[in-house]
This record gives sequence, structure tokens and C-alpha cells, in this order.
Amino acid sequence: MSEQQELGITESKEYATGEWYAEVIQKAELADYAPMGGFIVTRPRGYALWENLQSHLDSWFKDTGVTNAYFPVFIPESYLEKEKDIVEGFDPEVAWVTKGGYDELEEPLAVRPTSESIITPFLAQWTRSHRDLPHRVNQWCSVVRWEATETKPFFRTKEFLWQEGHTAHEDEDGAWDETMTRLSQYERLYEDVLAIPVLKGRKPAHDKFPGAHTTTTVEALMPDGKSVQGGTSHYLGTSFAEAYDVTYVDEDEEEQTAHTTSWGLSWRALGALIMTHSDDQGLVVPPAMAPTQVVIVPIWQEDTKDDVLEYAQDLEAELGDRYRVKLDDRDERNPGFKFNEWELKGVPLRVEVGPNEVEDEEVTLNHRPDGESETVDREGLVETVDDHLDAIFAKLKARAEENLEENVREAESREEILGTLGQHKGYVKAPWCGDEACEEPIKDAMAAEIVMVPLDRDAEPIGDECAICGADAEETAYFAKSY
Amino acid sequence: MSEQQELGITESKEYATGEWYAEVIQKAELADYAPMGGFIVTRPRGYALWENLQSHLDSWFKDTGVTNAYFPVFIPESYLEKEKDIVEGFDPEVAWVTKGGYDELEEPLAVRPTSESIITPFLAQWTRSHRDLPHRVNQWCSVVRWEATETKPFFRTKEFLWQEGHTAHEDEDGAWDETMTRLSQYERLYEDVLAIPVLKGRKPAHDKFPGAHTTTTVEALMPDGKSVQGGTSHYLGTSFAEAYDVTYVDEDEEEQTAHTTSWGLSWRALGALIMTHSDDQGLVVPPAMAPTQVVIVPIWQEDTKDDVLEYAQDLEAELGDRYRVKLDDRDERNPGFKFNEWELKGVPLRVEVGPNEVEDEEVTLNHRPDGESETVDREGLVETVDDHLDAIFAKLKARAEENLEENVREAESREEILGTLGQHKGYVKAPWCGDEACEEPIKDAMAAEIVMVPLDRDAEPIGDECAICGADAEETAYFAKSY
Repeated sequence: MSEQQELGITESKEYATGEWYAEVIQKAELADYAPMGGFIVTRPRGYALWENLQSHLDSWFKDTGVTNAYFPVFIPESYLEKEKDIVEGFDPEVAWVTKGGYDELEEPLAVRPTSESIITPFLAQWTRSHRDLPHRVNQWCSVVRWEATETKPFFRTKEFLWQEGHTAHEDEDGAWDETMTRLSQYERLYEDVLAIPVLKGRKPAHDKFPGAHTTTTVEALMPDGKSVQGGTSHYLGTSFAEAYDVTYVDEDEEEQTAHTTSWGLSWRALGALIMTHSDDQGLVVPPAMAPTQVVIVPIWQEDTKDDVLEYAQDLEAELGDRYRVKLDDRDERNPGFKFNEWELKGVPLRVEVGPNEVEDEEVTLNHRPDGESETVDREGLVETVDDHLDAIFAKLKARAEENLEENVREAESREEILGTLGQHKGYVKAPWCGDEACEEPIKDAMAAEIVMVPLDRDAEPIGDECAICGADAEETAYFAKSY
Repeated sequence: MSEQQELGITESKEYATGEWYAEVIQKAELADYAPMGGFIVTRPRGYALWENLQSHLDSWFKDTGVTNAYFPVFIPESYLEKEKDIVEGFDPEVAWVTKGGYDELEEPLAVRPTSESIITPFLAQWTRSHRDLPHRVNQWCSVVRWEATETKPFFRTKEFLWQEGHTAHEDEDGAWDETMTRLSQYERLYEDVLAIPVLKGRKPAHDKFPGAHTTTTVEALMPDGKSVQGGTSHYLGTSFAEAYDVTYVDEDEEEQTAHTTSWGLSWRALGALIMTHSDDQGLVVPPAMAPTQVVIVPIWQEDTKDDVLEYAQDLEAELGDRYRVKLDDRDERNPGFKFNEWELKGVPLRVEVGPNEVEDEEVTLNHRPDGESETVDREGLVETVDDHLDAIFAKLKARAEENLEENVREAESREEILGTLGQHKGYVKAPWCGDEACEEPIKDAMAAEIVMVPLDRDAEPIGDECAICGADAEETAYFAKSY
């Protein structure tokens, strides 16, 4: 096998999505499989994607009153058990530490699957008066959920990176506003940074976060037609506050119970990002997310090498003040090899410079992923590159928007739901009575489920009768296959 | 107990250092004790210190070729065992996951105590040719070491936050340069950011990192006279590369074994920071580390309130572009209360504005920790504040430097070592034969140990004969009590 072949993607996104995805992950050097099933090693190019995502979301959180904190990686069993829904929801998925050194522990410690049960007691401890509220804490950390499924990097792993925010408020209004603020920030991350349009909605009652009053979600449609739950924001009502005693004295000196929220977004967002934009040449990501935004590839013959390299180095210095730039001046590789390598690794903009460009004081710009190419003046290059990066973002976004717009359909009967899901990618909207039992026949036949209902509780369903059972419709259900 | 009393520190740094430290940690809202012994909850004001430290160190790492990555939180037992020195070094301190969900695991998983044994095999996998080297990866994460000691936030906890860097190089020179580069960055962090002078040295052979060829350290002297190991950088030789098979083909097509390093700095740096500068009024930190750098306290009567507040708000807007500023405009607290609270919480510079300041277009600046106060023109305030923050840094640094300079002494015999350690704070230098047995009598009598020897292996010892046994001296040993 030549190095060239080894470098390139051999699977097809369209015909073998799973294999293609796994190949992109490994060959673009984003992640490797760890020795234990269900775990991955996030390599520098993959982790840089996470850092770029963090830098956006973390600054929006901080601008809106959130402070970061760090709570222990372990949660005592007795703490997990205080909120019964949490225990029932997570118990089968918990990794347990039972030994410290050579000794059995008196009480097993859960490796956190989520941290409500260790954070909420501290929100309680820090709260006496209404003046102490709201509390807004967030942590960037990893969590572990012991699910026995095939490993799919960033989509399905036993350990994953995420942020989890936890807040306490005086009343429902405050907590509900918080829930919506965070959902909107997740939407903004997908739409404005990841170039992925999302649908905002609620999870159906039977699929809420354990203990939550309402679970809201942003759902992203992948090119293969499956929906990804892109981030969830939960209004928890008073259930956690009651279980862990988060009370406060209000302005009238009355004791009240706080209302809490939690919200989380994981590296699954990276999975959605990679899956959405990449192609059979490798990784594609929008410029704001790219570890390297601009690669400069000099093209020389022996007699032009010095001039071309000097020109390329000047460009690197000029562009480097503003972008993450790499000059690929390796002697041992030809330009074609370099083009392929940086396409594989997802650099959005390639700057090619050869003797002609040097002579004419120009550069040639080439867009990932569509190869659109333009030769432009060197003068004003920083602004020109700005425009081209914006154009690349717009192309990626438009393509993803088209995929979503074309793939939301309606159906009015079970047969029509199944027929539409069988024939097409994406979502099928149908009137629904609200009963989990009416999801079962669709799940059994198509492995599709209700991924969301509209955010607005007062929205009229799109039909009067449940498409499955014929009873009065309460909601509009969005059926889809999902990751 | 009045709120005022509750707010203030009641213990004395000089006479009850341990109790005073614990009180500062809790009352300045840096951390709380978790329900499980040995674990803490890092509150937002404490975590902000960690974020400020990270922002410096992480950017220096990246400027010098390091990329961040993320490796699994668990390490299979069989991986830990491949480097026998590691397992012997950490086995008694490992927390073991033995159950996933309801099932016993076939192989216990260690919660990482440090990650050489999971990272080095991947460095091996990523390395074929000399062109692949060097590899430099770092991760910011938590590690767990199951030590049964009293909990002391940031100094002694079973779980702690740190960064761990792992690198592979072609040869000893490359790996040794790397070891020194990271040690110098740790030194720079302490000296230029934390305002704490350090001594650079090597750990004696019997106190090296398990499996290391050389362990280098920066040691910081606390005001109570104990030394803190502030960060360590290890030249690992080829021991890990041999155990995990990190080999490469060199320019002559010969297979070679790589040389590796690892280096780590933990939140103990925050413990050293808090311990060094804080006082009986509470937290003191240098401006670059302070979560809030400037607090504006308006002082008004009913008839001057509007004018004073407006003036204060303008100042907040102006200073907020450049510093982390808080305007404390609470109605329900008087200025004295606010002064105390922000002193407790470690804000370096207080800006006081009352009717006089408004009339004269001035502000009054007050330094934490020494209360030095100056009324200055409002015009040019941003630059003036810059100068004052620099002055605050310089004062803190000078005081810490004085503590170190005054407390390095020499001794030539066991009696002199013990007498000096008994009478004085700090380090005692003595000629040493290099044998661990000669440390024992000092350890037994004074709970002091050899915290370092000079970095330069060729440095002449300060005397010809070991101060303990009288044999030929090989090194100069620095004895001290330590955290």
C-alpha cells in the first residue's frame, strides 16, 4: 500500500456512512480507539475542535452570569439515591469504584454519570436568602455511562466530554428563562459556529431527563437522514430542590423552595459537525472550528524555490496575525500530496503560490470542500481571506439548511408515517395523542422514535386525531431515526 | 454571631497556620469539603484562580509546540503493570472501578493516577519515522490518588486538577531540552504570575518519579517555613519507551528507541498562592490571578447618591474594558462592610468614590494587602490603575523574595542541620553522600527531608564530607519540612 493510498479515504459517505465516518475520524487524526471497548483517545486535531467549541460557548455562558466550578468525579451511592428518578434513570449505567488502594470502600462511589446529585446539595448549602439567588455554575468535565453499544467516536462512547450547567432560581419564571437562554445558546453554537441548522423542541414526556419537569432539545439532521440530539436544557421544577433541600427565605421572610435547571452539551456536537460537512476526501469543518484555517502550499522548481519560499513566508507572517496558519514547506512531499493531506485534515482555505503568483503579486485561493479557486491580489489579502472564509461558511451552512428544509414531511396515519420514513430521510411530523404506546409500532417497525414535539405547549397539533390510535391529538410528534 | 463576625477570618496566619488556611479557603468561597473525605468542591472563585493560571501556562505550552489532547479517565490494570516501576509506585494509591452497571468487570480499571501508561502506547502507535518526532501532548484533567491523609484543599486531596504533558523525542538531548523548557515555564508561572520566587533543582534519586531517569522540581518556600513542590518535570530516559515500544526509524534506516518526558503542575500551585500572600483579613492574590481585579465602592449620603453612583458607573465602564471590575452598588450594605468583604475575597485594588471625589474629579485607590491609599486624578485612570496593579504585584513579590532569601542556611553536621531546622524556617543546605540512609535521622527527628539537590550535576558540593555520615560528599542536599 502506498503512502498516498493509506492517506486517503476509501469508503463512501453516501453508501457506507458508518465506515466512512470511522475512517475520517482516524485518518484525519481526530481520535483513536482506546484499549477498553467504549473509550476513545482524543488526538490533538480532535481536541482542538473541542477547544474551539468551548471558547465560543464558555464566553457566552460567562457573558450571561455563569461561573465555572469543579465538583468531584465521584458521587457517593447514598447521594445518587436521594432523587429516585435519577437513581432509576442512571443506575444501570453507572461505573462503580469499590476499591481504594488495597481496601474495599465502605460505600461504593459512582463515577459521575451527571452531577445533579452532588451539585444540588451544595446549591442548597450556599442558599439562605433570596439575595443569594440565582446560582449559576457550570463545569467542563467528562462523565461515564456504562452502555453496552458499539463504539462510535464522539457519538457513542462510555466516557464523554461535556459541559453541565446547574442553576437555582427563586421561581418558575426565572428557571424557565434560564432553560430557554441555554437552549438558545446551543442553537447559536450550531447555527453560527458549526454551520448546522437545528430544530428546537421538547422531548416527549416519556423521554425526559430523569426527574425533569421539561426537557428541551436542539435536534440536528445528519446527511444520512438521522436526527442527532444536539444538546438538552432541562427545567427541573422543584423535584431536585425538594430532594436536596434547596430552600430560601423570600422578601417576606417566608421559606420557599427553589426551582432548578440543568443543561448539557457534549462532544456529540463534534460528531454532528464531522458527519455533516465532511466528504469522501476527508474532514470538512467551518473556519471558526478549524484547528488550521489556512494552509499555504508553495509550488517551486529548483530555480524558483528561494523566491517562492520567501514570498510564502511573508504571507505566513501577514496572515498569521489574524488566522491559524500553516506553511507547508516540506521538501520531501510534492504539492499534490500536500493538497490531499490538508484536504483530508479539513483545512478550509488553501493558499497556493508558485512563480507566477510571485511575479504577478497574487495568490491562488482554493476552497474546501468544493475546490472553488480564485487568483487574487496579494494586496489586501487579509480582508480577501476574511471574505473567502465567510463564503466557505455560507456554502456549508446553505447545504446543511437545504438538507433540513427538504426533509421535514407530514403524515396522518401509521401507514403514512412508516411509508414516509421508509422512503425518505429526515423527520415526519404527525398528530399524536401523547401516549408512549403510540410510539411503539413505529419504533418496532422502523427503529424511529419521537425525537421532539414543538417547544410551544399551546401550539395546535397539525391534525385533530392521533395518527396512530385515532384518539384526540395533543401534540405534533416529530418521528425520526436517531443517533 | 453577627454577619460581620461570620464574614471575617478569626484565626491567625502566624499562630495557627493550618486553621487560618482552612478558614480563608472557606470564607473567601474558594472551596468546600465534599461529603467523601479527601475530596473538595472547587467553588467559582476558586475555579477562576485555576482558569487564570491555565490561561497563562496553556498559551506558553502552545507557543512552544505543545498540543492538548484527552485520554481516557480509566487505565486497564494490565497497562499499568507494563511499567513495573509505575505499578509499584502507584499501586497502593489507585482507585479501582470493578463494576459497570450491575456487572463485575473482567479486568479492573484504574482511575488514572497519572497517564504515562495509557499515553505512551499511543505515542508508540503514532511514531514510525524520525519525521514523526517530537510528539508533545498535554491534557488538563483530574487524577485520583487514594492517600489516607487529612484533607487540605489544593494541597492534599484524593482527587486533584492538574496538567500532565507527555513527549517523545529522538534522543536524550531533545528530551532533556524539553524537560528544562517545561521546568522553566513552571518557574516563570510562579515568579511572573503567582509572585512567588522558587528554587529549581532535582529530586534526590530515592525520591524520583517512579521510572524516571531524572525528576526536576521547582520548590517554593511558604511563610510558615515549609517547602512546596511546585511542579515537576521528568526526563524519563528510555524506560517508558522500552516498556511501551516507542521506536522509530532514523535517517539511516536504523530502528531506535525514543526518549520520553513527562511534566505536571497541579492545583497545589493555588494552595501555594493562597498560603503565600493571604493574611488575617483573608485572601490576597496578585492582580493577574484575581477573579475580580478592581472593586469600585461608592460612598454616598441620600442627597449625594445619584451623583456618586453615576460617577461610579462611568468608572466601571471605563475600567471594565481593560480589567475584571465589579461595582458594588448594594443598598443594603454600608461601605465598611463592603471593604471587609472584598478584602476577604482578595480584590487587589479598591476604588473609593464619594462626593469629594466626584467634585474634584478624582478617585481614591487602596491597595490590598497593605492598605496603602492614594487619591489620584480621574483623568488617565486606566494607566494609573495599571501602575498601581504593577506596584501591588511588586510588593507581594518582594515580600515573598525576602522570605526566601532570609531562609536558606548552611550546616555541616547532623547536629547543626537539626539545630538550624529547629530554630529557623526554610532550607538548610548540607554536603551529602547521596545515600538515602543519611536522610533518615533528619526525617525521624524533625519530619524534614531532602526536598532537592542542585540542578547542575557537576556542581561542587558545599563541603567535602557528608554532614551525616562523614563519607565523601557527592551533592548539596536541601533539607526542609514540606507540604
